[in-house]
Amino acid sequence: MDHIKKYIDENKDRFLDELFGLIRIPSISSLSQNKPDMIRAAEYWTKTLLKAGADKAKVMPTEGNPIVYGEKIIDPKLPTVLVYGHYDVMPVDPIEQWKSKPFEPEVRDGKIWARGANDDKGQSFIHAKAFELMVKTNTLPCNVKFMIEGEEEIGSSNLAKWCAVNKNLLKADIILVSDTSLLGKDTPSITVGLRGLAYMEVEVTGPNQDLHSGLFGGAVANPINILSKLIASLHDENNRITIPGFYDDVLEVDAAERTDMAKAPFDLETYKKALDIDEIHGEKGYSTIERTGIRPTLDVNGIWGGYIAEGTKTVLPSKAYAKISMRLVPNQNHTKIAKLFQDHFNRIAPKSVKVKVIAHHGGQAYVAPTNTNGYKAASQAMIDVFGKSPIPFHSGGSIPIVSTFESTLGIKSILLGFGLESDAIHSPNENFSIDLFHKGIEVVPRFYKYFAEYAKKQ
Amino acid sequence: MDHIKKYIDENKDRFLDELFGLIRIPSISSLSQNKPDMIRAAEYWTKTLLKAGADKAKVMPTEGNPIVYGEKIIDPKLPTVLVYGHYDVMPVDPIEQWKSKPFEPEVRDGKIWARGANDDKGQSFIHAKAFELMVKTNTLPCNVKFMIEGEEEIGSSNLAKWCAVNKNLLKADIILVSDTSLLGKDTPSITVGLRGLAYMEVEVTGPNQDLHSGLFGGAVANPINILSKLIASLHDENNRITIPGFYDDVLEVDAAERTDMAKAPFDLETYKKALDIDEIHGEKGYSTIERTGIRPTLDVNGIWGGYIAEGTKTVLPSKAYAKISMRLVPNQNHTKIAKLFQDHFNRIAPKSVKVKVIAHHGGQAYVAPTNTNGYKAASQAMIDVFGKSPIPFHSGGSIPIVSTFESTLGIKSILLGFGLESDAIHSPNENFSIDLFHKGIEVVPRFYKYFAEYAKKQ
Repeated sequence: MDHIKKYIDENKDRFLDELFGLIRIPSISSLSQNKPDMIRAAEYWTKTLLKAGADKAKVMPTEGNPIVYGEKIIDPKLPTVLVYGHYDVMPVDPIEQWKSKPFEPEVRDGKIWARGANDDKGQSFIHAKAFELMVKTNTLPCNVKFMIEGEEEIGSSNLAKWCAVNKNLLKADIILVSDTSLLGKDTPSITVGLRGLAYMEVEVTGPNQDLHSGLFGGAVANPINILSKLIASLHDENNRITIPGFYDDVLEVDAAERTDMAKAPFDLETYKKALDIDEIHGEKGYSTIERTGIRPTLDVNGIWGGYIAEGTKTVLPSKAYAKISMRLVPNQNHTKIAKLFQDHFNRIAPKSVKVKVIAHHGGQAYVAPTNTNGYKAASQAMIDVFGKSPIPFHSGGSIPIVSTFESTLGIKSILLGFGLESDAIHSPNENFSIDLFHKGIEVVPRFYKYFAEYAKKQ
Repeated sequence: MDHIKKYIDENKDRFLDELFGLIRIPSISSLSQNKPDMIRAAEYWTKTLLKAGADKAKVMPTEGNPIVYGEKIIDPKLPTVLVYGHYDVMPVDPIEQWKSKPFEPEVRDGKIWARGANDDKGQSFIHAKAFELMVKTNTLPCNVKFMIEGEEEIGSSNLAKWCAVNKNLLKADIILVSDTSLLGKDTPSITVGLRGLAYMEVEVTGPNQDLHSGLFGGAVANPINILSKLIASLHDENNRITIPGFYDDVLEVDAAERTDMAKAPFDLETYKKALDIDEIHGEKGYSTIERTGIRPTLDVNGIWGGYIAEGTKTVLPSKAYAKISMRLVPNQNHTKIAKLFQDHFNRIAPKSVKVKVIAHHGGQAYVAPTNTNGYKAASQAMIDVFGKSPIPFHSGGSIPIVSTFESTLGIKSILLGFGLESDAIHSPNENFSIDLFHKGIEVVPRFYKYFAEYAKKQ
């Protein structure tokens, strides 16, 4: 497979230039002001795919941001790989914590620094460039389809509908997704589990207007104090979530699998040092890897209310707000959990306030079995490139659409990610290793090769 | 006293024009960007006093915002009234809730609508115009001194030092302050108690950077969840404050005084309806009037952390913040309470986070006795204008400098306020009744007259 390394080496500067062109488009899906950038990013992808050798590539509208579809069908009898990625990115605040501008990618210390460098522009671009490589070197062994969406960070709700409508167009044998992390740069791994997600927003209203905290304080419910009490009550003293029914559908992972999980490389002191924390914090009775891999959680992602500027203001505010999300594990249904949260929150709120609870997006958890051709092809490709067998592991993150692919299209996904936990995705100073970007482009053509071979044998 | 009504009637349009000129200066003391407006407001006051007939009036610098001093000494043997007021105002956010612009005063429904309409530009202007009236109608029976500061809303820390240095200049028999409310527009009252204040700000730090809530959620302490738990723990199930030692110095008010307090006009249904709340909320065992009048409280005035913009972001933030203030009652020392809070908060924070607690400004509570010439003169002046005897009552608000006047200058203050609880001071749509503005200008010259008479008799 020498042609792979050679092609990458000869084209690596252009690969980066082209990726930077995509990164420079500030396609933040949660902000309405960035709508035009979504179109620009989608158009950039179609051009990229056509230039790489796709038979066709087009921007397909949805009720939200458009989806890019592209394909190259070389022989209907050969297996088909469907590549999934997303061109939308997370917001950039707190902007003041970035060392370089989020949408002006920079290379420092062998890494690309920018919003989307990894998630998911950098990772999905691996597939664009691996596809180009296979086309240009006449080594493409499978048919290829691409679907690149623009709403992954806000719940992929239009992609789900679009998949249902375009089921025939999307027929494939396997879905390939690069939107996860490796356990370490020299520790290859494949994600076999993803958590589900239920994302809520709550509004607590006390008096109908902001009041003077001296004249009314002590006599009228303060919505911030109440919201804090409500949030605090959502965990018990063992850090278990107190919402009735929350754990009902959780499948407890058995002792054997927990023993296997404990073999993954993990050093608590290194972990604490990297985050500058003195102590970890989580559900009693579980290790850190278990807490993020196989246990559901509840985190406040944002809170605000009252006077939050410089100095002081003695106000008893009218309203307080919080964004609260729950990560779910296999067998928990995100719609049911959102409803349980809503009912519980409404029930525990005291009569001195009014509460409003809305559900943002959500998604089911996902499990990928390791006894499939797809997993085996991915594993062998990684062995070739990294020189060792990848560890199958459960990630704490969520890619809600992956379980929808299974239920809507009936196709399993392989989560072949090349990020690192230290890449600061969703955070200031997001980055992506150029070495792993190249390793990804080395792994993917090998995956195609093995996947085609294993299919032939069956 | 017909000349009073006549003078007001002939000059009322000009009075409003001049007050509006002061209100239009956005003198927000807590925002550094408004520094130049503080000077402008102080200069406006000196001009106002000189035009009204002061012998001298000047802007006196401090380490912070300047203080306006003015005087008219007609006879050293006559009693001297020292008027205190402040030209600084509170911030205006949430700006979108204002019906008209905060610094463009409007008259609607017989009220002035603007930031500072009442607190304290409107109320302190009563004294400027009453002074002018007495000078122009040759009826001034006392010497008059004015001190108008620009840091009341941020703790008056420079006024305290300035008073200590200018003790001789400020010699007087009584201090007159209009910065409080009446129990109702037809229910005259005089504030005889003010709560003290300790204003804190806390910062809770979890990991050293914002993290992806999927990859780290459940394993790393979320500073918002922790902050909520800490805030929630500050009140027990009876809504008593849990900080050890917090109530140690509180003087319990005896049954007789509580019976007297219960006679003040108060209708719970009207109160709830005005605030649009279904239930009140406060310390068990006390009435609403007691909760704001004679009991200490703890309110979160602001909270923020994580993602607070439109849509969703699955972030486990690095930091969360809150501004928390406590209203104190007589005998509680604000410095001691700030220290108790700080120690307690540091002690209860789990090791999985770091906390930083800073004390903003504070002030002692104040009690004004009713058996003094000052109180009696104020009471008689109110009877003349309102036709009934004012009710002495404890306000929940704080004017920390008033207890400093007593300790530093040795002079008692009379809290002769003409606001209403519905004036929305510190809130959007602050307003002030023009009728009460005029009634104030009617009351003040009568106060001077009775105060001079009672002094002569002694």
